[in-house]
Amino acid sequence: MREQVFLFDTTLRDGTQGEGVSLSVDDKLKIVEKLDQLGVHYIEGGWPGSNPKDMEFFKRVQEVNLEKATITAFGSTRRSGIKADEDENLQKLIDSGVKAAAIFGKTWDFQVKEAIGTTLDENLQMIYDSVLFLKQNGLEVIFDAEHFFDGYKNNRQYAMEAILSAEKAGASCIALCDTNGGTLPHEIYEIVKDVCSKVTVQVGIHCHNDGEVAVANSVAAIQAGARQVQGTVNGYGERCGNANLISVIPNLQMKLNFDCISEGNLTKLTSISKYVHEIANQSAPSNQPFVGKSAFAHKGGMHVSAVLKHPETYEHVKPEALGNARRVLVSELSGQSNLLFKAKEWNYRFDKKDPSSKKLLETIKEKEHEGYQYEAAEASFELLVKKSFDQWKDYFTLDYYKIFIEKNGEQAFSTEAVVKLCVQNEVVLTAAEGNGPVNALDHALRKGLEQFYPIIKNMYLSDYKVRVLDETDATASKVRVLIESSDGNEKWSTIGVSGNIIKASWLALIDSVQYYLMKHDSEIELNHPKQDEHCLGVSNH
Amino acid sequence: MREQVFLFDTTLRDGTQGEGVSLSVDDKLKIVEKLDQLGVHYIEGGWPGSNPKDMEFFKRVQEVNLEKATITAFGSTRRSGIKADEDENLQKLIDSGVKAAAIFGKTWDFQVKEAIGTTLDENLQMIYDSVLFLKQNGLEVIFDAEHFFDGYKNNRQYAMEAILSAEKAGASCIALCDTNGGTLPHEIYEIVKDVCSKVTVQVGIHCHNDGEVAVANSVAAIQAGARQVQGTVNGYGERCGNANLISVIPNLQMKLNFDCISEGNLTKLTSISKYVHEIANQSAPSNQPFVGKSAFAHKGGMHVSAVLKHPETYEHVKPEALGNARRVLVSELSGQSNLLFKAKEWNYRFDKKDPSSKKLLETIKEKEHEGYQYEAAEASFELLVKKSFDQWKDYFTLDYYKIFIEKNGEQAFSTEAVVKLCVQNEVVLTAAEGNGPVNALDHALRKGLEQFYPIIKNMYLSDYKVRVLDETDATASKVRVLIESSDGNEKWSTIGVSGNIIKASWLALIDSVQYYLMKHDSEIELNHPKQDEHCLGVSNH
Repeated sequence: MREQVFLFDTTLRDGTQGEGVSLSVDDKLKIVEKLDQLGVHYIEGGWPGSNPKDMEFFKRVQEVNLEKATITAFGSTRRSGIKADEDENLQKLIDSGVKAAAIFGKTWDFQVKEAIGTTLDENLQMIYDSVLFLKQNGLEVIFDAEHFFDGYKNNRQYAMEAILSAEKAGASCIALCDTNGGTLPHEIYEIVKDVCSKVTVQVGIHCHNDGEVAVANSVAAIQAGARQVQGTVNGYGERCGNANLISVIPNLQMKLNFDCISEGNLTKLTSISKYVHEIANQSAPSNQPFVGKSAFAHKGGMHVSAVLKHPETYEHVKPEALGNARRVLVSELSGQSNLLFKAKEWNYRFDKKDPSSKKLLETIKEKEHEGYQYEAAEASFELLVKKSFDQWKDYFTLDYYKIFIEKNGEQAFSTEAVVKLCVQNEVVLTAAEGNGPVNALDHALRKGLEQFYPIIKNMYLSDYKVRVLDETDATASKVRVLIESSDGNEKWSTIGVSGNIIKASWLALIDSVQYYLMKHDSEIELNHPKQDEHCLGVSNH
Repeated sequence: MREQVFLFDTTLRDGTQGEGVSLSVDDKLKIVEKLDQLGVHYIEGGWPGSNPKDMEFFKRVQEVNLEKATITAFGSTRRSGIKADEDENLQKLIDSGVKAAAIFGKTWDFQVKEAIGTTLDENLQMIYDSVLFLKQNGLEVIFDAEHFFDGYKNNRQYAMEAILSAEKAGASCIALCDTNGGTLPHEIYEIVKDVCSKVTVQVGIHCHNDGEVAVANSVAAIQAGARQVQGTVNGYGERCGNANLISVIPNLQMKLNFDCISEGNLTKLTSISKYVHEIANQSAPSNQPFVGKSAFAHKGGMHVSAVLKHPETYEHVKPEALGNARRVLVSELSGQSNLLFKAKEWNYRFDKKDPSSKKLLETIKEKEHEGYQYEAAEASFELLVKKSFDQWKDYFTLDYYKIFIEKNGEQAFSTEAVVKLCVQNEVVLTAAEGNGPVNALDHALRKGLEQFYPIIKNMYLSDYKVRVLDETDATASKVRVLIESSDGNEKWSTIGVSGNIIKASWLALIDSVQYYLMKHDSEIELNHPKQDEHCLGVSNH
């Protein structure tokens, strides 16, 4: 019999306290739908009493058809010295139209005196009155016990009295908050265990990641008897973030046999994590546990052969179970088994005796010696494979390019690129300015290609990285350029290596464009099938 | 009485298994010095038996003067069916010249049979023979018990026999590895406790972050009796990374009263974290616990006034203790305290009322806003300070530079730079070729300066790094260029930031040259004190 743990997501409220995280009302509504599809039980949408934008959210979210999730509004206990029904903040919780509210109150005696400057007794009364008032107005109430762990350590008796006031007034859940994020798992476990022995309603846990242990703290609290876990998608939140639900869920469900969401919905975790990163305009850390691009990536040759035989050797859970996938990185440290695996993925029969396979192996060896590293440039690697297997055509060739850069005294920079290409047997000469030489080249190349391949307008460069390979020669040494491109849906990465940063960038640039054209070959119409022009196009490389 | 926990850093070995993390031998040597200054006890430098590049590291690291750290080489137990002294991998550990080796062996019965295909008895013998052989050759031996936690859960008796073999043969430490990273803290605690009751030598812990609990696991193991903790700076490592020492250290030392490093060295954690991010060309997550830019950032309103009155309310530890700083996001008062601290180090009287100090503060704020980060560019920072305190003269000024790049069909590249300078009141117009635009600029600049400052022939650029700051704009976004220069004795680093990579490089380049001339000002003879030429030189920037 698996026990249920209830999920309380606060991405839209506490998550937006994270530096650089900002969500519009539309963004929030999109995320609400995804969280509901995942099977989250409570979605905290905002603080209507502190933010007018949040009021609009609560109005519009009523139009959204939700399967399971209860939309929750955040607020605080009433102010000291007034009645609950006179408190504007509590009134706004009711006005927001939600069925559930999470209100925070002080449980640390020091905070009661210093932060709100009232008596310990009045604070207990504030908690009681506020919970009761919301209950009487038909709301389910979750009580967020702010600073609970610090309070407990400083004055256990008072901290307990505070949460018991909330329970007595009818709170359905007492969520214990590690507000400053500094508590360690063993303390969380002991304290939650004590609370669970005194409280009869559900106990919840709300952790922050200041000690880099928020996931462990949340898990420890559930093991100690808590049954609601608060957190955010991808761990967004103030300072170092909140507990990351994307990691808490699989730990609880796959390793400790709790039920959080339906078994099948675990496979949505990877796509939801990515979706929220995109909406919040945050770059997705490739090493993010469970859902990151590198989470099931294998590099060393030895590891790879072992993983192919027995995945449990280097994988703590099955990547497919999370909607993620195993990846084999092609790199200097790798043996042939990595290569075999990749080739299979793309349906190439790889046979060491076959001339195409031999050619590919040799090319890779050569390229790696030059400084190519394909682990982060799978699109370039796929082109390499296609070329070795003669399944390749050039969509354009280069005649020449020229770049002019000028800085004149205090005047602004000027950077221009001239490109001469051969495209579909036609000569194209074009020029463009840019914010730097590679940017100018990129602009000129697109300008030349767009008339032939209008689809190219959909793609753009989303990241550009440069690494110097042999650093003893500094600016004369080899550089490795990695370019990431996107068309809004998919992303792909390409690589170029050269002693000249411009050339290296060019190589990565044309791989990126050629890859995109190859992937959309069926959509390309040959608009200019002229044969009469004299085209001197040569290899791009 | 505080107990000692020994730190075993594997940034240079396991850390480089992380996707996108790649370190040259020079990079590794730089990181070694920083780790030694921090007070790390063991630095694992690489795997000499698997990688020829690592052999060069072990040779060159012998020239580095270390205060405390023991350089350690990584390897495996001997192959099955041969003698230890016939094993090439063990021989290379001895040849590498280190005083300590960490060798891994199988402790999971399933792995013994499946991965290396030998008998359980032979594996015990392999462990015993290999440890003994290295001991007999004068090495301290740390035994890395691979897959220990999975092994223990599958066959406790065999896993224990395996580590007892290593102990019997003379290993100084048995490091228990959670190789696939899936174990949770409560299991780690129980198993390490059991091991500590059976083993008399030191027990170590080596965790991976696949469950997002590597820091908690490491802490739990120490609480259970382990006294060595293995991990990497910033948590780099395969898949989701290794345990992050930058978080493990303050948790153990500030919260659990263990000794890891000397108390004063805790303040180095922030700068070392940033330094390694820069060297490894990784972007530093702003929400990184303890050392991130947002780790002690407070968003407006209630939190801020509370924090100013009582920092313990929203800060689990003191930011200054880690070399970090509190930030109030409304007024962007970013990490200046480090920099001011540095200014003091160079004997500048810093007083907020003084106009020079004010100017410096404002300039830093401006520059940081532009994307400058002086952690890894102290020479540029020293120039900035000198300029603010009016202790500065330009050794040359720029009139203009022009760069011409041309790729013509299959022909070689041509890259030329033309530079017009004003040096000692004389106009200098010169041109040079180069292997890339920055290299050409560098050549032309030197060519123009050498006749006036022959000392410049002694310096050269030893490293060149580029980072894209705002990655959403790719090649149109801002870049940060870091240049490291050397004259064979000393090294210094400079920085430039611009939307144009050429301009950013130029800024770092002239800082580097100006810094060198300033440092050797007394050796400079003014050979060309002409006053008659009309020199239109303007600011270099």
